[in-house]
Amino acid sequence: MGKIFAEITMSLDGFIAGPGISNQQPMGANGDKLHEWIFGKATDADKQWMDELLQTTGAVITGNHTYTTAIDEAWGGGSPFIVPAFVLCHVVPSKQLAGFTYITGGIHEALQQAKGKAGEKNIWIMGGASIIQQYIKAGLADELRIHIAPVLLMRGTRLFDNMGIDPVELIKESVTATAAAVHTVFRVKK
Amino acid sequence: MGKIFAEITMSLDGFIAGPGISNQQPMGANGDKLHEWIFGKATDADKQWMDELLQTTGAVITGNHTYTTAIDEAWGGGSPFIVPAFVLCHVVPSKQLAGFTYITGGIHEALQQAKGKAGEKNIWIMGGASIIQQYIKAGLADELRIHIAPVLLMRGTRLFDNMGIDPVELIKESVTATAAAVHTVFRVKK
Repeated sequence: MGKIFAEITMSLDGFIAGPGISNQQPMGANGDKLHEWIFGKATDADKQWMDELLQTTGAVITGNHTYTTAIDEAWGGGSPFIVPAFVLCHVVPSKQLAGFTYITGGIHEALQQAKGKAGEKNIWIMGGASIIQQYIKAGLADELRIHIAPVLLMRGTRLFDNMGIDPVELIKESVTATAAAVHTVFRVKK
Repeated sequence: MGKIFAEITMSLDGFIAGPGISNQQPMGANGDKLHEWIFGKATDADKQWMDELLQTTGAVITGNHTYTTAIDEAWGGGSPFIVPAFVLCHVVPSKQLAGFTYITGGIHEALQQAKGKAGEKNIWIMGGASIIQQYIKAGLADELRIHIAPVLLMRGTRLFDNMGIDPVELIKESVTATAAAVHTVFRVKK
């Protein structure tokens, strides 16, 4: 079985989106400053990260807030993923689309279903912050792959916040720095 | 003139100290997990960072809270710095010691006095968080040198919090990763 990893881009001051998230602005105000390693300023080293992510991922788990915010505009009304994606939600959303499976049974059920689809490949917990926190808190995340963007965003949605658990020690797997991101991979010590 | 830089160790989730800071525990609960790159697990690459810090720093600016918490136990009743240190305070503390100058006139005055002592060398804004935030907010910090420790501390004192200003863009100068820290140097875009 593959790994269960959280992968997301965070500003140096800890934010994964700016304030004022909407369908028109799914990353919030100034959220574009986070993802220059993917868009405006991608180098070969940055692209290699994205390629590896796509090649080694067998299933995606995302939150309902991310889904509903992104689906119309950012994702253009369809799944941006080439693999099955599972949307964690309390109630199945009215807009259902091919490529997505809607899970109302919680993080363990989502993971179980994702494992059934991922085969030997990895399972990507893509966020939002609350979903990543829930998987860390439950001890289910094997790796954190955090792309640190060179900006202090100052406000927005924090990746790590109010988790109410003891410290989690990490083991550095790899760190690669480009102009637009410090790509870090940490294994969760278990 | 040298650079004005903030240098401090932060957990991946943004904390520079755990909760419950006291004279006996100046880094708070689990704060020792932040500084293994200096103490328990220092490699040659880690030591090189510390050596360079000591060799290129001409003056230190610290906050009164850091001073009063650290002076008796952590700093053993004397200055740990080989260069002049300036303590930002509202009221000059009752315990005054050689090597320290107590500044009640604010961050600009502290910087001016530090410049007078640092010569061609750099000025190290060592913290705490509030002091570093004040210098960033005033546009006076040239560089951020953040050592990211491989731990999610979950609670404590955040380095970046509530600064109430627009995003600050950074330019990556260097990144070196060891087992116990990701040593990052970012220049503040001005």
